[in-house]
Amino acid sequence: MSGRIWRLGVAGLGTVGGGLLELISDRPDFAPAAGHAQVVAVSARSRSRPRKASIDAYAWFDDPVALAGSPDIDVFIELIGGSDGPAKAAVERALQAGKPVITANKALIAEHGAELAVIAEAKGVPLLFEAAVMGGTPAVKMIREALVGDHIRSIAGILNGTSNFILSEMEAGGREFAAGLAEAQRLGFAESDPTMDIGGFDAAHKISILAALAFGTAPAYGAAIVEGIERVDLLDIRLARDLGYRIKLIAAAAWNSGAPIVTVRPSLVPLAHPLASADGALNALFIQTQRVGRILLQGPGAGAGPTATAVAADVADVMAGAVRPVFQRPAADLLPFERIDPALGVGKAYIRVMVRDQPGVIAAVSETLAEYGVSIDSFLQKSVEDAEGVPIVLTTHQAPQATLHRVVERLSGISAVIDPPHLLPIAQI
Amino acid sequence: MSGRIWRLGVAGLGTVGGGLLELISDRPDFAPAAGHAQVVAVSARSRSRPRKASIDAYAWFDDPVALAGSPDIDVFIELIGGSDGPAKAAVERALQAGKPVITANKALIAEHGAELAVIAEAKGVPLLFEAAVMGGTPAVKMIREALVGDHIRSIAGILNGTSNFILSEMEAGGREFAAGLAEAQRLGFAESDPTMDIGGFDAAHKISILAALAFGTAPAYGAAIVEGIERVDLLDIRLARDLGYRIKLIAAAAWNSGAPIVTVRPSLVPLAHPLASADGALNALFIQTQRVGRILLQGPGAGAGPTATAVAADVADVMAGAVRPVFQRPAADLLPFERIDPALGVGKAYIRVMVRDQPGVIAAVSETLAEYGVSIDSFLQKSVEDAEGVPIVLTTHQAPQATLHRVVERLSGISAVIDPPHLLPIAQI
Repeated sequence: MSGRIWRLGVAGLGTVGGGLLELISDRPDFAPAAGHAQVVAVSARSRSRPRKASIDAYAWFDDPVALAGSPDIDVFIELIGGSDGPAKAAVERALQAGKPVITANKALIAEHGAELAVIAEAKGVPLLFEAAVMGGTPAVKMIREALVGDHIRSIAGILNGTSNFILSEMEAGGREFAAGLAEAQRLGFAESDPTMDIGGFDAAHKISILAALAFGTAPAYGAAIVEGIERVDLLDIRLARDLGYRIKLIAAAAWNSGAPIVTVRPSLVPLAHPLASADGALNALFIQTQRVGRILLQGPGAGAGPTATAVAADVADVMAGAVRPVFQRPAADLLPFERIDPALGVGKAYIRVMVRDQPGVIAAVSETLAEYGVSIDSFLQKSVEDAEGVPIVLTTHQAPQATLHRVVERLSGISAVIDPPHLLPIAQI
Repeated sequence: MSGRIWRLGVAGLGTVGGGLLELISDRPDFAPAAGHAQVVAVSARSRSRPRKASIDAYAWFDDPVALAGSPDIDVFIELIGGSDGPAKAAVERALQAGKPVITANKALIAEHGAELAVIAEAKGVPLLFEAAVMGGTPAVKMIREALVGDHIRSIAGILNGTSNFILSEMEAGGREFAAGLAEAQRLGFAESDPTMDIGGFDAAHKISILAALAFGTAPAYGAAIVEGIERVDLLDIRLARDLGYRIKLIAAAAWNSGAPIVTVRPSLVPLAHPLASADGALNALFIQTQRVGRILLQGPGAGAGPTATAVAADVADVMAGAVRPVFQRPAADLLPFERIDPALGVGKAYIRVMVRDQPGVIAAVSETLAEYGVSIDSFLQKSVEDAEGVPIVLTTHQAPQATLHRVVERLSGISAVIDPPHLLPIAQI
């Protein structure tokens, strides 16, 4: 227990940076036993931009890299964002100078985490990133610290609030994707360029980080199999619901014969599963382990307050002086993480085929599945207003992905089938 | 990063102790960067009792206090149980000897945590107890570390798996309490003397610990207001369901004008609330904070695997060398925690009155509430098979507890009322 002052340098004064300055000026003693945290210097793109609170009390740096290397700070906090450029240069500079680094930057950690971990561990300083995943909901701490004695089998989560908001909005409001996105943009839940969120890339950054912590692999964003929500139809949301499922953008990582498979895909989740009830902009994470069993963590995944709280937790951890590897094991021992051909996977699926309502079409569809040895779990034909043709929807038992793709291709060739069939995975949770 | 061997002494070789020996012999390198953990000495009531794995490899101590003080161990792990006696003596001995202590003993921490924290902090060694609350589900770490920069407003949880199993069983199986308890005992979810669980005392120990972590008070088990599930009727479970609620044993702590109120009571939870869907032996915790907002954590609260994983997480924390206060703030600064008169509280309630079905009875009941200024939220009269009389059930808006008790007393006096009315709180979540 000490009265030491910890001098923080903060680069990036957007939503999270502003929230952090507010938190620390409100509660400089938030980690009382370890001394006091004090922001002493900041850097941002514009010094003069209007802000909620004055930044005159802090030393100003035009260059975040210069701030990172300044002898006047004890801890460097990177809230600039972006996987490369000034964020990466500044983090490297701070680590090289032997300073603990805290970042909320999921792209940086997912794409360059392994090399940064090598520097941090060589210098013997922490590199912490609780705020990079699920904002103030402590997913990183749970996997890295609480489950360190367990074997994690799989993790699956709703890690992007924007996509989850849009899917919830589509279901609740009976809107198509474009209208759901417009509503999310109007309410501030989606950015004007929403590609990172709706394309699944933001969730892919986050699940890549969690996979590295869970399985001892290097984080490898490029190895993730990513599909966004742009092609989710309201019709599929409704039909899935009739079959007892909700469609969610599920980011998942599972250990599969010697390597993790990491995916981000719109997936069917059984209504009774806790991930199905995380609505709106909520995030949720479901972990299955050997010893503990099943754990659910749910909370807000973004926003100034939650994310600043996660950064503050990392500041308290730095002050507490714990020495741990950056990921699950020392950087030198991280397993390589290679992209696995998704066709090698096995899973259950949802298939929707739009057909002309004529005799024999159900037989033709079901015979195609039988021919490939794919067994049907549930089957539904339902007339839909305003739709050309009639949808046949079915869910399958476990089948190889490659087989499912061949089935879909064959179904396209049936003469009564109007559109290319829609194939969605059923989440393995 | 070091190759240091951490020598563990384990006192108590029941379910959790056995699980821990198994975990550590399976994965001695579970915290690889910090060296290896190795159990070197054990103590238990009987040396010769049949066990899954041999304990011949460990030094044996008849006396756990002697083990706690042995110079041959670096960390003392207390899994004996009980708030006093050998558990307390051994923990005190280890702390006095300057050894880190890990315990799964909720009674010890809830009843003597403040005095033990004084010794631990004076000696500069950690006293950790993740396993004392929610088994392998990291409630303690979440509140103590992840939310350290936030202001917690309230916590509410399902912290006793046995009670939750019995309530779930009553609802699902249409059984009365006694039959639900018998089923829980048959399946091993309840002990032959189930008083600690069904009486709410186990949950009270756990919420007392979480309240100390959340609010900076000394843990004060004696200040908790505790009511068990023995008097929950199947009829109330069914009627609450009709009104859109499920009855759960809710352990809650909330900050209320300068002091926390800590309660354990069977309470109505709205069906849409995540705590309503934690069924069977699951535990769940719902936290409301100023900055993060609402967080849910759900998982198994007991069992060898989960609890041993929590102990292992604490071992890893000791090895990582973090220095933190035992509770939210240094032991010397913990606020006193005084019992607040429950009658001073304010809340919503469920009231069930069994009446003879005769004209004017609804008017008499509703007029009584109006007379005391208690406003009715929902009202239901329903005939029930095999019941003497007809139940009238209602839920109220916010009202002072003292007033609600006076209302119930007045209702008893109405001539058409058969039994004393049942009053249950609606959880404030």
